[in-house]
Amino acid sequence: RIIAAIESMLGQGPLSGRRVLVTSGPTHEPIDPVRYIANRSSGAQGAALAGALAELGAEVIFVTGPATVPPPAGVRVVAVESARDMEQAVGAALPVDAAVFAAAVADWRVSGAATRKIKKSREGLPTLELAENPDILAGVAQMQTGRPRLVVGFAAETDDMVAHATAKRARKGCDWIVANDVSTETGIMGGTENAVTLITGEGAESWPRMTKTEVARRLAERIARALG
Amino acid sequence: RIIAAIESMLGQGPLSGRRVLVTSGPTHEPIDPVRYIANRSSGAQGAALAGALAELGAEVIFVTGPATVPPPAGVRVVAVESARDMEQAVGAALPVDAAVFAAAVADWRVSGAATRKIKKSREGLPTLELAENPDILAGVAQMQTGRPRLVVGFAAETDDMVAHATAKRARKGCDWIVANDVSTETGIMGGTENAVTLITGEGAESWPRMTKTEVARRLAERIARALG
Repeated sequence: RIIAAIESMLGQGPLSGRRVLVTSGPTHEPIDPVRYIANRSSGAQGAALAGALAELGAEVIFVTGPATVPPPAGVRVVAVESARDMEQAVGAALPVDAAVFAAAVADWRVSGAATRKIKKSREGLPTLELAENPDILAGVAQMQTGRPRLVVGFAAETDDMVAHATAKRARKGCDWIVANDVSTETGIMGGTENAVTLITGEGAESWPRMTKTEVARRLAERIARALG
Repeated sequence: RIIAAIESMLGQGPLSGRRVLVTSGPTHEPIDPVRYIANRSSGAQGAALAGALAELGAEVIFVTGPATVPPPAGVRVVAVESARDMEQAVGAALPVDAAVFAAAVADWRVSGAATRKIKKSREGLPTLELAENPDILAGVAQMQTGRPRLVVGFAAETDDMVAHATAKRARKGCDWIVANDVSTETGIMGGTENAVTLITGEGAESWPRMTKTEVARRLAERIARALG
């Protein structure tokens, strides 16, 4: 680690000269000025990964939703709130050599969010009409020109993890999927450890349970090797 | 303040021997294991109020949703997540001399929250069916026996503040409403200052804009006077 930090300072890490985009954290989708839909993502794995990539010498653009974990040192932080904000920030960060989408982007937003606080009314319950959010991962993975050489998605699953994540990789057109099981009983969501399975073109590779920092280092090294 | 702290330690504050309940923070209403509906409440005003009441010698039971501001020293903290959790914790805290409901409780929860993560499907968008949450303030304010002598509600409004808050006081059956304007341009939501209007049986009393700590001290003193 110390050697990596020194190499990074000297501009000699394996990723020096490379631009890498990392998205992280949840997104918040407004319902009205005081209510929103959110995801239970602390942003811990994304922040650790961005830090590990920076330690290997990469220039990291860190696009983060409202996370509970602070961003790491040595990265360029772009703070966003909603999925649409995040899509814009990602577009502005391109071109990059590698893009890692660790954010837990809301699949849906509330269409026509109210500009005034919705009052309880006698006419009954309001209906939340949902609209599909932009698919940021697929958008970048399927770029015709200027596509990053390596596009990595994340998949938080509660059942059938490998099958769901493998299908997700094909559907999105990305190179790798980092899958994990976020069932409540695993304690991974909001915890310090993670047990991931890396889905690549060669199949599924299950890593032992380790700290999110260690997962981040191993992933950063794999990214460095892939970029060559 | 030093005198108040010393008096409180000696059990001599104006609220010594009084039990006061304060609810604070947002509630999180689960949609599925990874998604939830939340409110933009930092819990700052509730935490400041609980601290100010403890400084005046009260035994404070602080029932708090997932707030971003830490709870104050010297209070008994009961951490909850959803509105229904909060209702239970409030019931368990009774009887009290005064109850202050500063929490931004979600009006609605998602009925039949999913136990598995909802997948994006080809069949279109999911519909979020909402159910009304328990009205904790009204429930306590309208107790037939064992009602706290003073029941205080909060009203976060974005328009017609005094009219809405006065109607809320009558509808809920509480003694006071602390109303504030949380329109984005006021910067109150998430900020350190607050401009409140106190609605009592005598009418509306607008307080100048001051820090949330100062609002808390003034309110705590008013509560001490009301309990006599």
